[in-house]
This record gives sequence, structure tokens and C-alpha cells, in this order.
Amino acid sequence: MSELHNLTLKLQKKNDSKIVLLVADGLGGLPLTPGGKTELETANTPNLDALAQRGTLGLTTPVIPGITPGSGPGHLGLFGYDPLEYQIGRGVLEALGIDFDLGPNDVAIRGNFCTLDAAGNISDRRAGRVSSEVAAPLCAKLNEIKIPGVEVFVQHVKEYRLVVVFRAAGLGGNVDDTDPQATGVPPLAPVGNDDASKKTAEVAAEFLRQAREVLKDDAPANFLMLRGIAKRPPIPTFEEVYGTRPGAIAVYPMYRGLARLVGMDVLDAGQTLDDQCARLKAAWNDYDFFFMHFKYTDSTGEDGNFDAKVKRIEELDAAIPQITALDPTVVIVTGDHSTPSKMKAHSWHPVPTMIAADTCRFDNSTGFSESDCLRGGLGQFPAKYLMGFALAHAGRLEKFGA
Amino acid sequence: MSELHNLTLKLQKKNDSKIVLLVADGLGGLPLTPGGKTELETANTPNLDALAQRGTLGLTTPVIPGITPGSGPGHLGLFGYDPLEYQIGRGVLEALGIDFDLGPNDVAIRGNFCTLDAAGNISDRRAGRVSSEVAAPLCAKLNEIKIPGVEVFVQHVKEYRLVVVFRAAGLGGNVDDTDPQATGVPPLAPVGNDDASKKTAEVAAEFLRQAREVLKDDAPANFLMLRGIAKRPPIPTFEEVYGTRPGAIAVYPMYRGLARLVGMDVLDAGQTLDDQCARLKAAWNDYDFFFMHFKYTDSTGEDGNFDAKVKRIEELDAAIPQITALDPTVVIVTGDHSTPSKMKAHSWHPVPTMIAADTCRFDNSTGFSESDCLRGGLGQFPAKYLMGFALAHAGRLEKFGA
Repeated sequence: MSELHNLTLKLQKKNDSKIVLLVADGLGGLPLTPGGKTELETANTPNLDALAQRGTLGLTTPVIPGITPGSGPGHLGLFGYDPLEYQIGRGVLEALGIDFDLGPNDVAIRGNFCTLDAAGNISDRRAGRVSSEVAAPLCAKLNEIKIPGVEVFVQHVKEYRLVVVFRAAGLGGNVDDTDPQATGVPPLAPVGNDDASKKTAEVAAEFLRQAREVLKDDAPANFLMLRGIAKRPPIPTFEEVYGTRPGAIAVYPMYRGLARLVGMDVLDAGQTLDDQCARLKAAWNDYDFFFMHFKYTDSTGEDGNFDAKVKRIEELDAAIPQITALDPTVVIVTGDHSTPSKMKAHSWHPVPTMIAADTCRFDNSTGFSESDCLRGGLGQFPAKYLMGFALAHAGRLEKFGA
Repeated sequence: MSELHNLTLKLQKKNDSKIVLLVADGLGGLPLTPGGKTELETANTPNLDALAQRGTLGLTTPVIPGITPGSGPGHLGLFGYDPLEYQIGRGVLEALGIDFDLGPNDVAIRGNFCTLDAAGNISDRRAGRVSSEVAAPLCAKLNEIKIPGVEVFVQHVKEYRLVVVFRAAGLGGNVDDTDPQATGVPPLAPVGNDDASKKTAEVAAEFLRQAREVLKDDAPANFLMLRGIAKRPPIPTFEEVYGTRPGAIAVYPMYRGLARLVGMDVLDAGQTLDDQCARLKAAWNDYDFFFMHFKYTDSTGEDGNFDAKVKRIEELDAAIPQITALDPTVVIVTGDHSTPSKMKAHSWHPVPTMIAADTCRFDNSTGFSESDCLRGGLGQFPAKYLMGFALAHAGRLEKFGA
């Protein structure tokens, strides 16, 4: 367990405070030219600026300097879990991404359909990128496979991709991929790397034996390969390490899944930011920590659409009064990483972050921007420490030592 | 041993330099309103400002971000000892707080008088908050208890609180409290959690057996309970890890105790800041490192008295010329934590810190304030690294590697 969690476990205390963590995915950006402004600096954000004037700003480093995180590590850091200590396997992320409620006995696997030739060798590793219309019913057939002592779940994701979950006590998550990363050869047999994972490999082998029979007339999708076989790591819950009752208000399944992973209740978020704000208001008395996720600052950045990202930031800004009207004790606005539209991708650049609370040491910030954050009172710090500040400003931590 | 100490052990060298570490307890503050000034920014501090102009400023984090330290962890960090690595038990802090000279074979205990009813159950866990006048003579009686092979010390603290110390080789410090945290039940028997601590538990049981007899006619204080049973952790001394001869000039016992814990000589500090400065001058040739402690920036903050804290900072400022007149090689002014009068309590906010020495890289600071420190050349850094800077500016560290 991390330094922070060892401390918060001991020091946590309850009160009536409310914390809102608003994550604008991929918030940080880049100017398009030297001397130019970032997306956040270009956007007209009177409400975020007002928060900044009564808050403390800084820049968070999601993992370590220079490392660009995916959504998993990015969010785990914000939730206070060191993303290097809690590494989430690809199968688990894929299952979280379709809202699968993964339990501690579940082994999650990214499956993908492939084509076998008459000799049993792989002729296409993605089954000709078979359409979702074709693949979804095949997943339903695979979902009917029975293995004694093991619950089997097969759910379609998109095109040739699916999720397979084996649920049984004592299954390990350390099993090699069955994808040989080549054509003209047969798929690999599943190999487990420890006793519990050998048991999983046996289950996987039986699953694949039955799948081959089930799919035999379904070329090009006449078989599947298993990748990223993993269990969710044991993660202490928010309630345990922070003593808070957390609710997540996220539209996209991946973020609901990440919230579920740390023990948050996943609330019905609707489809729009207004829906999310309405849910926040409705659930206000039921929780004391709220994680709200806004996706479109990332997706517009990934599209390389500077102007669209600016507009999405302004859309987020317009929703801020609905949050502040609830009078939260602590409001945090940040991102899980930067997604500069200039780069059309996630990046390692530190992430604009602000905390607004009555106990802030003001830092003369005039608005919420990368440059204000660079001069801000929080300095630059690892995202994994953000929850410490959140709890401190909420009065939810006792003093350490006498 | 920490990274820093592993290095300073190897790299330390002697010279004629003098280092003064001036700790203004709870120095950091908060403005009362957005855009306002902190206590330090409000105070008129020409002498501290002059030091800042020829120094380098920064903000120290006492433990990790968001964690509010007590005096123990706060000072250990400033002394260069990671407060998470060296955790001091409550019994030890209580003993340090009454100036008890705790040795490596001592088990220190927070005692408190309680009332037992005729059936031997606790009827009052604090013996009706018995007055010091009544409790002190009872402590003197308990101090007469003899246990073969063990030295027993009992000293009164205040009202129903006392310190008990058992001194003998081989006693462990991992013994559970005897306070059941409830009334209507008997006190718990002492239970040791390892072999050495089982021995301590036997000593404690014999002590309690005799105490019950000694106090039997002293209701409401007719018994006592033992809490926070602990030994001081093994701590390498200042002389060992830094190669300095340290002297402590602190008025309050807790800070003298903390200084003693790291091997400082504890000097007679008198009662006032002028007394302390006179002692500094008198001892100037006997030591090469001086820890001076000023309490009132914390106590006024705890009182929530903004104006009084401002006045105390100005009082401290007025004493600075007495220190600089001695021409120290390095002067450090900092706090062990922040105590914003707005919060009437210790806080987690980073602490204004400055180092003045001829080898400073100036940072264009115009004065000593939270906002100057935020823009200062030291940046924000863990307090445990401060001693590295102190030794470096004093020319007391060789180069690391060739």
C-alpha cells in the first residue's frame, strides 16, 4: 500500500463535507505556434476562471515525467492509486470498457475472431475485420459454452473484438496470449505461468475446444484467439482508504469501469453534461465524493480539432454553475492526461489542475490555464497526491503525529 | 537509512562554518479573504526581507502533500529525518514534552489517572479531571514503586495526565493500551505483542498491581491506565550523519526533547527570544549548528488570532539582527508546518522557507512571504531535504562521485 494510503487509512475522519472531482479527459493542450495559446487558454471560461481566483492551481504529472498514460493509469493516479503500483491488464480494461462488472474471481480476456484454413493454420488474424452485425451473434453462441465449475461470459465489443470472462475461485491471471502474431501457423495453446494460471489455461483450452466446434461453419470468423489474459488487481476501495462514499457520474463505460474498480457506486449519468449535473444534484445527499467525467475534451484533441476542443471546454465551463450551486466543500477540476490537438494523441505534458475550497492559499491566479497553473500554489506534483489535498481541504484527515 | 543520510555519512567534511536553523513554529498562514495577505505577508519584516534579498526561497512540504503534521514529524523533517521512516510513539512524545531525558532502554508511557468503583470497574476514565495539586503528589508516591531489575520513573504532566518510564535492557515497546475506552468495565491487562514487549507487559502488570495498592485510598484518582506505550526509535545522531556539533536553543520542552532525540545538546534557552539570542552568542564557539525554536507563531495561529500572529512574526523579525551580527555562514528561516489563524490549527499547506548564504543563487525575492517563496529558487520540496542544502551552503559536503 502506498505512503498516502497508509496515512489516509489511519488519519481519515468523517464529516459532512462534499468533494467534487471533475475530470475533463485530456484537458491539457499545446499552442499551435510559439507564443500562441493552448485550447484551454483560448477558450472563454468565466466560470472556471472565477473558481481559479478563489482556488489554488498547479500541474499534475500523471505517472512520471515524460510518460504518456492511457485512461487507466491516468484515472488511477487521480483517484490516488500509484499507476505504477496498480497496473491493470488489457483484458481487464477491455471488460471495464464494456461496463462488465468484474469480480475478484474473474479472469478477463480480450478475444478476437480469426480465420483458420483447412489445415488449422491462421489465414487472417482479424477474420477479415468481420462486421459487428456478423460478430455479435457469434458471441451470443459462444456465451452458451458450458464448462463444469466455471461461469463463462462472452460479450461482443466491436467488429472482430470480444471479451471473454471465466469466473471461478482459484483461477490465476498469468496466462500467455494464444495469438502467435503470425499467419500460416496454428494458434498457440494457452500456457499458464503459475499453478493457479495453469488451471486457467486448462479452462481456456476447453473453451477453445468447444469454440472451434461452435464456430466451425462461421468462416471467416471460424475461431478466436485470447489475449491480455488478466485478473483485476486487488485494490483497496475508496471507502476503505479514504473513508468516503464515492459516486461516479460518467457517460462512457471505460470510466464507469475504472470507478467501479476503486469501489465507487456507478450512477446513471445519462448522455449529456446537463444529465450528469442533474444526477449530481439528485445524488447529492447520498454520497460525499463525486467523480464526474467529461469525455469530449479528449476526443476532440484526438481528432486534432483545436477549435472543437475549445468549444468543448466552453461547454464544460457553462456547466460549472450547476456544480457550484450545490456548494461543495471542495471542487477539483483537472484531466487524466493532456491530449493536445496539435498531437492528435494523449501526451505526457503536465495537466492543468485546480482546487477550490475555503482553505485554499490563493496564488493570484486570474484564470484557469496552463500558464496560470504553472505559476500556481500547488506547483507541479504527481497526480497520485491529489486525493491527499482533496481530503485535507475537506477536513477529512486528522493530524499525523503529535 | 535515508538516501540523504547515506550520502551525508560519506560526503560530510568539517570546517569552521556556522549554520543557524531558525524554526518559527507554524509559520505558514492563509489570507482571510481571496486576494488578501497571509500573516507573514501582512507583518512588517524588514530584517527577514533583507535576508530574503540575499537568499533563496522556497516552500517545504513537511510530510507528503495534503498531510498535516504534528510537532514531532514537522521537526524531524526539518532535521533531515523522513517523518514516515522515523515515527515517534505517543508515550515518547509525552516524555519529551516534559523534558524527560529518554534513553535507548526506556519504555515511555502516557499514563492517566482513572476512578475504579468497588467492583473494580472504571467509573471515570479521567478521574474527574483531578487537579494538578492533587495529582502531582500521587505521582510522587507512584515514583517510589520498586520493581526488581527495572528503574521506574513516574512524573506528573498536567491534571490527570502523567508519564511512566520503565528503564531496563531488553524491554520492547509494542504493548497494547490498558485503557478499554469505556466505563463500567475493568481496565485491560497489559499485553505485549512480541517477546521483548511481553517482558514489558509483565513489568507493567507488576507496576499496576503495586499502583492499585498505593492509590487505594486516593479516589477519585484511585488507579491509572497506560497508553501509547513506546520506545524511542533508533535514530542516527546529527553528529553521525552530518558531522556537525549541534546545539538546541528552545524554550518549550517538546522541542528540546525532539532536539535531544537527534543527539543535539540542549542549551539553557531562558524564556524570551532575547534570552535565546544571548545564549546563541554565548555558545557560538561551542557548536557549529544551532537550532533555535520560536513557539508563538504557532500558538497565536492556534488561537485564531491573525493580528497576534502578525505581531509575533514582527517580534521574530526584530531579533534577526542579533543572529546575523554573529555572521553565520548559513541562516535558514522556516517553520515545522503551517498554522493558519483562519483554521486555528496546524495545516498541510507548504511552509515558507529561506536560506541565506554567500553561495545562494538569488531569485529576485523582495521579501519573505508565501508568495515570494512560491516563486523562489528552491521551488517546492520535501522538508527532509532542507539539511542537504544547509550542509551544502556551509561547504560541509564533498562532491559525490568523481
